[in-house]
Amino acid sequence: MSRYPFLIQRLIEAFSRFPGVGPKTAERFVFYLLKQSKQELDNLSSIIKNLKTEIKFCPNCFNFSLNNFCSICADPKRDRTTICVVAEAQDLEALERVNTYYGVYHLLGGTLNALEGITPKKLRIKELVERIEKTSPSIQEIILALNPDLEGETTVLYLTKLLKPFKIKITRLARGLPTGSDLEYADEITLSNALEGRREV
Amino acid sequence: MSRYPFLIQRLIEAFSRFPGVGPKTAERFVFYLLKQSKQELDNLSSIIKNLKTEIKFCPNCFNFSLNNFCSICADPKRDRTTICVVAEAQDLEALERVNTYYGVYHLLGGTLNALEGITPKKLRIKELVERIEKTSPSIQEIILALNPDLEGETTVLYLTKLLKPFKIKITRLARGLPTGSDLEYADEITLSNALEGRREV
Repeated sequence: MSRYPFLIQRLIEAFSRFPGVGPKTAERFVFYLLKQSKQELDNLSSIIKNLKTEIKFCPNCFNFSLNNFCSICADPKRDRTTICVVAEAQDLEALERVNTYYGVYHLLGGTLNALEGITPKKLRIKELVERIEKTSPSIQEIILALNPDLEGETTVLYLTKLLKPFKIKITRLARGLPTGSDLEYADEITLSNALEGRREV
Repeated sequence: MSRYPFLIQRLIEAFSRFPGVGPKTAERFVFYLLKQSKQELDNLSSIIKNLKTEIKFCPNCFNFSLNNFCSICADPKRDRTTICVVAEAQDLEALERVNTYYGVYHLLGGTLNALEGITPKKLRIKELVERIEKTSPSIQEIILALNPDLEGETTVLYLTKLLKPFKIKITRLARGLPTGSDLEYADEITLSNALEGRREV
């Protein structure tokens, strides 16, 4: 039984639903906020309030955007013949950080996950197919940049089958040993992938 | 260089300032919020907005309260002859959970910490002294329930010296081996405290 005022209890509950946050951490967050200035809390409050209404999605690739098209789709320098399919905006961000990919993207909004009820209909797969249909002759490659886990693999298989009729080159990210890792401690699947994908030097 | 819209960047920065939260976790929080309903975000936003204005402090012990006195100070069943001095509301909460203490509390609002500039003036020490002065003949014991760390110890020493003239019994929480711990792995200070505080069985 908590003796905290109702408002504090409600905020602890709200923070407890954040990913990776338990009730103890949520409590610390609330006490941190209680020590901030009124101005600071008003700012945070208004950002959260406007998050849903101000953030829009690019109608082309479903990346975040403030206007109509996102900064990548609106950039005339990007190569429109290559589409990189990613699950979420975080993945796009990671790839952009590498600074070696100049194509465009398509954000699925997740990966297939039967247990959590994420079916193909819940992802932006229909939109991907429509986009390819519309611009098909000019597209030369579709890169499936999904996580190398169960959900990612399932999605790769599903998309590969679905996109086959377009006769476009479909690739996926290389799997193998990560840089700086130790061969001795690599798991069997990673090592088998590294062997299979070996390249001439 | 992040490509996220400004609003998302600002929210990531705000969450990064939360205790124990780095930019990666902050990013996950923002993406979690983006998936919530407008209603949910409005709720969270309004709680944060009202936090500072709706949460008041008990004028007697400085615990949270919604009215004038907090639920503990307003409770006629609590023993007003014993004051338990704690640093924060979380500590009060922990002691209340034990359900064996029936006295009242006094919240300092922290512990002395020279490095972080927390001087006696920044804590509610003056208020504690005034409270004791006002009710002194009826107070029989003051329990200093502060963390057994450097800051807690400093505060205990400071308060003990300050409250000596009142000639009230001043106690502190026992130090020793925590339940379920392993003597073999106990540190020297804990073990020395456990030896020093040994009790007849």
